[in-house]
Amino acid sequence: MASLTPYEFISRKQAGEEYSRDELNEFLSLYMRGDIQDYQMTAWMMAVYFKGLTDKETSFLIDAMIGTGNRLSFPGFDTPLGDKHSTGGVGDKITLLLAPLVAECGLAIPTISGRGLGFTGGTLDKLESIPGFNTNLTVDEMQDQTRNIGLAFGAQTAELVPADRRMYALRDVTGTIRSYPLITSSIISKKAAEGIQGIVYDVKCGRGAFMQDEDEARELANWLVRISTEFGLNAAALITTMDAPLGRSVGNWLEVDECLRALRLKAIEPDIRQLTLALGGTLLSLCGVEKTPMEGWKKMDMAWSSGRALKRFMQAVRAQGGDVAALDEGVNPHPAEATLDITAEKGGYIHEVDAREIGFAGVELRAGRSTAEASIDPAAGFHFRLNAGDEVGEGEVIATLFGGSDSLLAQVAPRIQRSIRIEDFEPTLPPLLRSVVTPKGEFSWEEFKGMTIST
Amino acid sequence: MASLTPYEFISRKQAGEEYSRDELNEFLSLYMRGDIQDYQMTAWMMAVYFKGLTDKETSFLIDAMIGTGNRLSFPGFDTPLGDKHSTGGVGDKITLLLAPLVAECGLAIPTISGRGLGFTGGTLDKLESIPGFNTNLTVDEMQDQTRNIGLAFGAQTAELVPADRRMYALRDVTGTIRSYPLITSSIISKKAAEGIQGIVYDVKCGRGAFMQDEDEARELANWLVRISTEFGLNAAALITTMDAPLGRSVGNWLEVDECLRALRLKAIEPDIRQLTLALGGTLLSLCGVEKTPMEGWKKMDMAWSSGRALKRFMQAVRAQGGDVAALDEGVNPHPAEATLDITAEKGGYIHEVDAREIGFAGVELRAGRSTAEASIDPAAGFHFRLNAGDEVGEGEVIATLFGGSDSLLAQVAPRIQRSIRIEDFEPTLPPLLRSVVTPKGEFSWEEFKGMTIST
Repeated sequence: MASLTPYEFISRKQAGEEYSRDELNEFLSLYMRGDIQDYQMTAWMMAVYFKGLTDKETSFLIDAMIGTGNRLSFPGFDTPLGDKHSTGGVGDKITLLLAPLVAECGLAIPTISGRGLGFTGGTLDKLESIPGFNTNLTVDEMQDQTRNIGLAFGAQTAELVPADRRMYALRDVTGTIRSYPLITSSIISKKAAEGIQGIVYDVKCGRGAFMQDEDEARELANWLVRISTEFGLNAAALITTMDAPLGRSVGNWLEVDECLRALRLKAIEPDIRQLTLALGGTLLSLCGVEKTPMEGWKKMDMAWSSGRALKRFMQAVRAQGGDVAALDEGVNPHPAEATLDITAEKGGYIHEVDAREIGFAGVELRAGRSTAEASIDPAAGFHFRLNAGDEVGEGEVIATLFGGSDSLLAQVAPRIQRSIRIEDFEPTLPPLLRSVVTPKGEFSWEEFKGMTIST
Repeated sequence: MASLTPYEFISRKQAGEEYSRDELNEFLSLYMRGDIQDYQMTAWMMAVYFKGLTDKETSFLIDAMIGTGNRLSFPGFDTPLGDKHSTGGVGDKITLLLAPLVAECGLAIPTISGRGLGFTGGTLDKLESIPGFNTNLTVDEMQDQTRNIGLAFGAQTAELVPADRRMYALRDVTGTIRSYPLITSSIISKKAAEGIQGIVYDVKCGRGAFMQDEDEARELANWLVRISTEFGLNAAALITTMDAPLGRSVGNWLEVDECLRALRLKAIEPDIRQLTLALGGTLLSLCGVEKTPMEGWKKMDMAWSSGRALKRFMQAVRAQGGDVAALDEGVNPHPAEATLDITAEKGGYIHEVDAREIGFAGVELRAGRSTAEASIDPAAGFHFRLNAGDEVGEGEVIATLFGGSDSLLAQVAPRIQRSIRIEDFEPTLPPLLRSVVTPKGEFSWEEFKGMTIST
């Protein structure tokens, strides 16, 4: 920032002025060097919360953030590369299915995931319920595994966008999470560092999502697609409903188990199937593997039916140190200490299973984290035999709770019971796939299916 | 804050909600205990910068800040107690004169001053140019000296409003200085902890002041008077001009020397005399020592003429460990290593001596501080033989520079030269005393003189 002091740098945003590329670069590098303190970073982020960043500034910030670490790169690798990002939900295990499926379709996916915090789960926590599974890959390991197997499940490390890790941790405790340019730069800095060509976003909207309001979800989707395009990424965002848990299971091992059953074609929940094919199909099209999202959808569907994605997933598990035998059918590496059934208090139709309440109940069971340092019980969680929209008889089991002790489950049970609303008429639920945001505008899913969005 | 997490506490201000007394108390006590971090405090202060605090919240905050330390108290002491606060200027040595003068008039003044930072000087730095002078008084020492001599020159210590010290240091480096409720709470927390009944504010306005704009100065004056009244203080604020340095000297020892000459009746600059009498006179009236500011002014003037305030000042110097012999006439405890004269490039009238430039030039000479930890050269500074409004002949000496070396002075000289503007016609300068803000409204100084403002 040339001759700007940290004070002057912050004051410029308070005054509504625009930063140059050099100023943002210097701010970030002084921060990483310790010459700008956390208390200055949080004050600045709060100023950004109120005054915003322009698209230009957001792009400069992302570049500066990426510049604090290394990037993945794949010279001479001619397989298309892409990734998917979800803004977070309850029971959202899509990455575990989508990654081996798109890899099977000819797209390499070096995905970098996060941990659960708040009421939402994290892909890394789910994967780490596989005994031995290591998500702490180096840049070299990420690159090699992506080249060799077509997919890698990495975490953000000190090597990759280290600035984001520090900034995100501070935003989380200072009320500066809900800022479009800060959310956008946090997400895209990691994706643009992956060396990919295309990215599909799952922007969730509803009771169990970060954005409960559809207008806010649409605004975030627009930010993500617009700024991704600035970074030369082919991007689209699906706005999807997150009111009830996705699929039938919530909890780390329980969700891995649900994915294994789906990859084995034993049980594929319709919502999981639809979302995986829509996101994966769109991604294949964005990366030029298929011409349209619909063709991508069909290719994904065929790959799924072939059962080959299971083998691909197992290759990744083995490559990352996971115990493949623990994933054999009939094996349960994490039997819960205690279980408890939740039954219907009356007969009728399930109108609501409040995903947010389920998520927070999961934190009580240590399936999720109350603080970043909290430990996780991989066995804990919920299996829903029935979900929103289903008919139920009085006394029928709706869900089974898994946890560390009977008393813990008894403590959580009333919260689960309250989160389930039963009425005597059939509910009208919003569609899972609401609309699609592309650089060309927003389309309903039906309109979108038929179009070419790869450029 | 009962069940509020720091995140929730901060978020409430982002959402524009009002805090309760308990919430602000708990926030401050968690902060002082280390359970709320500096990076959360700065984010919160930035949220306050944008969303403000109500009068109620500001008063609760001040109470909470005072509650982090001890207060002065004077049980059974029947002398009225008061203090004066200036928002900071260049060459502003008024406290050194006003304190012994009001003490001579029957008002006890346990004043707590600050250090210089930025382009403005600090009363503590000036006093510490007196060999041996100790400003680091305990609460007990402040109380005893105020009772015995009628005045004490204290600093904010770990005992007195420790929260303010930490908050102010953070504001200074995070761009959250310019917030009326935060300025107001910083100032009033210290004054209300002094156990006084009346307070007069010198809110400076102009090139050499924190507030350059008169509307901003008026707004700050209103905040200070309004919230002081909430704390049971009789308060008024004088809005005064700070374009050129006050008096003739700028620099720590040079300003003490100028005060000694004024107390010895050797040379009293008209601006210094006017401001000291106006502020002191108003304060005497606010504290019920005299009926009106004008009567207070006259009493101050008589006390000054009597020469007795010098003796009172020397008593305080001795009580605080200062070497009184070093203040004898003709003695100079800090002869400068080098001096340099600045002469007029042409004849005419001096229209401008830019106090802000002079202040920053003083920092270059180490008369002021560039960082809170920087050391000070007590000998360094400027003596202006002529000031704004004076006629000057070509080649005539306008100012003498004092500093550590010839090369340092030569380096600063062009800045001083540039800060002096000479024209060939007589200037029209704004009045020193612009207006007075009282709980009853704002008055011009002329109107104000005749009124009773003590309640």
